[in-house]
Amino acid sequence: MATELKTKPSNPGPVEPPIEVIRNEDDHFLREFIASIKQALANGNADELRGLTEQLYVSELAEVLTILSEEERPKLIELIGEGFDFAALTEVDEQIRIDVLDALPLHLIAAGFVELESDDAVYILEDLPEDAQAEILRTIPTLDRLALQRALDYPEESAGRRMQSNFIAVPPFWTVGRAIDYMREASDLPEEFHDLFVVDPGYRLLGFVKLNRLLRSKRPVAIESIMDEVQEISAETDQEDAAHTFQKYDLTSAAVVDKGGRLVGVLTVDDIVDVVQEEAGEDMLALAGVGDEEFSDSVRTITRSRLPWLCINLATAVLASLVIGLFDATLEQMVALAILMPIVASMGGNAATQTMTVAVRAIATHQLDPYNMGRVVLRETYVGLVNGGAFALLMGIVAIIWFGDAGLGLVIGTAMVVNMLAAALAGILIPIALDRFRVDPAIASSVFVTTVTDVVGFFAFLGLAALWFGI
Amino acid sequence: MATELKTKPSNPGPVEPPIEVIRNEDDHFLREFIASIKQALANGNADELRGLTEQLYVSELAEVLTILSEEERPKLIELIGEGFDFAALTEVDEQIRIDVLDALPLHLIAAGFVELESDDAVYILEDLPEDAQAEILRTIPTLDRLALQRALDYPEESAGRRMQSNFIAVPPFWTVGRAIDYMREASDLPEEFHDLFVVDPGYRLLGFVKLNRLLRSKRPVAIESIMDEVQEISAETDQEDAAHTFQKYDLTSAAVVDKGGRLVGVLTVDDIVDVVQEEAGEDMLALAGVGDEEFSDSVRTITRSRLPWLCINLATAVLASLVIGLFDATLEQMVALAILMPIVASMGGNAATQTMTVAVRAIATHQLDPYNMGRVVLRETYVGLVNGGAFALLMGIVAIIWFGDAGLGLVIGTAMVVNMLAAALAGILIPIALDRFRVDPAIASSVFVTTVTDVVGFFAFLGLAALWFGI
Repeated sequence: MATELKTKPSNPGPVEPPIEVIRNEDDHFLREFIASIKQALANGNADELRGLTEQLYVSELAEVLTILSEEERPKLIELIGEGFDFAALTEVDEQIRIDVLDALPLHLIAAGFVELESDDAVYILEDLPEDAQAEILRTIPTLDRLALQRALDYPEESAGRRMQSNFIAVPPFWTVGRAIDYMREASDLPEEFHDLFVVDPGYRLLGFVKLNRLLRSKRPVAIESIMDEVQEISAETDQEDAAHTFQKYDLTSAAVVDKGGRLVGVLTVDDIVDVVQEEAGEDMLALAGVGDEEFSDSVRTITRSRLPWLCINLATAVLASLVIGLFDATLEQMVALAILMPIVASMGGNAATQTMTVAVRAIATHQLDPYNMGRVVLRETYVGLVNGGAFALLMGIVAIIWFGDAGLGLVIGTAMVVNMLAAALAGILIPIALDRFRVDPAIASSVFVTTVTDVVGFFAFLGLAALWFGI
Repeated sequence: MATELKTKPSNPGPVEPPIEVIRNEDDHFLREFIASIKQALANGNADELRGLTEQLYVSELAEVLTILSEEERPKLIELIGEGFDFAALTEVDEQIRIDVLDALPLHLIAAGFVELESDDAVYILEDLPEDAQAEILRTIPTLDRLALQRALDYPEESAGRRMQSNFIAVPPFWTVGRAIDYMREASDLPEEFHDLFVVDPGYRLLGFVKLNRLLRSKRPVAIESIMDEVQEISAETDQEDAAHTFQKYDLTSAAVVDKGGRLVGVLTVDDIVDVVQEEAGEDMLALAGVGDEEFSDSVRTITRSRLPWLCINLATAVLASLVIGLFDATLEQMVALAILMPIVASMGGNAATQTMTVAVRAIATHQLDPYNMGRVVLRETYVGLVNGGAFALLMGIVAIIWFGDAGLGLVIGTAMVVNMLAAALAGILIPIALDRFRVDPAIASSVFVTTVTDVVGFFAFLGLAALWFGI
């Protein structure tokens, strides 16, 4: 890794060398570090564990947790006790999080939750079974609990779930000086913030002031005279749409409002990075027919998450075989057809996957719109024809040389043009159609597209052969 | 789109309804808007064009540019003149950007570049041919030009290319009051900033102060007493690694330093969102065998970008056919084998794609590491065996019913277990091996993996059939 990670931000004092597990040519340090942790765990040496872990970043603590065994994880947290930063649980996989919380005594979880930022607390709570959720919520002070419960009432993967409910709101008639004094004295400010929100007595949003604007204004200036209009996102908005808004308007933060237009939280661009990463990964896995699985899941969960797509694929493969079966007499006469037929289907399948992936990505990033749709469909058709023509010629020649039969070359060439064209049309039209019907094209496109290229491929090739050779 | 886009940030005054092209059920407004633009363009009415576009966001201006024809784009910019925000060119596809710049008079480009933030200027310049780059650079004032040239000297897709070279740096002995006064009076501050950097006289980085920390400190306090240690990223660092650092340490900004440790720029998390989006998209397209193409590219560029993968696929498909050819005598005897054989290959291919996509994603997000590698390979092997076993049983029964031949059921079942196991191993081991040899697993995995599942699939099925039936 080329990045130089010299020191921690916001944590002066002597700093341990940071852990960089992956792509670390020399992971000697980490191996030793983990060995010390395991040793201290085995000895039940709480002081040593605290010493070893107190300098770690949240993400490093999460890495350590992930590397430890299922039994060691809760033990580590119990021994460290109140010094353990529960934010680390937001950076481990869901299954690890659930298992760890399941194994910990409730009073320790309650103590950990008090220290959490509200978005982290929601992130940890939302995957838990409802009874565990309720049990943890009961241990949390009333005010915080109400905020968490409100956030959990918003839909999954919505802005309301991802927002930070701790923010600074001031009335419009305050001066810059008063706002600064307030911030100097307040004890319950968020750890990080870039903006002040300006609200009316009913908490309805009037505007916002960026910190750098505040800093550059004189103390007697009224807040309302330096406030800007604010980008509002409704708490029910899907996180993917919220991320799109951030990218479109180059936002660093946005106000989250409830149905009544009241300010309930703030979304910042660093939350959005995680959303973008997550959504892109989901699309990529969905296209490959991988369901809702996480990298640390068990064999059982993973087997289940991959089964549906394999089942559907078996059905489409059998359908393709039924098409082949229509031509059993032809195949019996001419074994060359059996040898060549997978090539036609395979080339179609690959060309279609290319087009389909481009289309799915363009739909996800809002690049494919009613204005260019016609142009894009036409373009993909051309590309299919050009590539189809080129490979038809090439494969025709190969077939003629291989089997010494010009007719066979002509048949496979024609079938390839037909199938590559079908591939292009299926690859672009199927994702567009699915999107129109509000079905996620990343999840459902592959099934339909491969069915088309398999069925058309075998039917065109064997059908043309039957016609040409009269068998 | 559920997001409520009420108003613009930092642009008070009457606001036009924002454009939301995609997923907009009622795109009547946009159609009319584009029609007015086209009309004004046709009439050469510069004032009307300025009126129509001055309220647009950069991203909306970019959308308008994209929708216009190749001839209309430069005409729009020329008519709007100096009021046109060249930042819009950073949000259109590469080909549009190159064509537009090619068609514009140099003096207009020069005027536009003066107004650009340095990272946007670099983004626009970096894709241009060298002579065009040099021509534009010549028109830029010396100081800005030197900063741009330095940024362009860093490798493509590096932190040095993405950084903003305009930042605030102060000496450690300044007081909070002096820093605030400096910011109140300075005229050349960046438009947005969240931190002050603290440097020594040689511009070597000493630390940074978050604005909210500055705001909450008393005026006589020395900057060095409230500064935090800073996360440094070397300017040569690849943008993907920089993004990983941001995510790992939850940064909102990081200092970019040159080889001598001197501060040369700042990377902020909103730049990182674009990087994460871009890199995830690249991986997804690479896995599907789509090369370096952009969504607005021409038929020619796209055909070329997809050809290499199709060529390689043809080669592997022919290889698979050669394997089938080994068993031509067997196939002649038993046409059922020809009918069933694509099922074995197809199921293997799909199972392998699932495993491979999970592996490629886990490598990209640094989730697959030396610590869990053994466990993950073992898990994928189990998943392959379990799914292989289930589908072998299912397909065996189908084959027996279809062809009334128990031997055939046994043969296809066994072949499927073998191929699904091969698929799992290839799907996990090939990406890991490619990554070890520093080849991007997203680009190269598919070729090897499909070759394995095709060859093993056909060989196992036809080979076992030849043995079992003695033909």
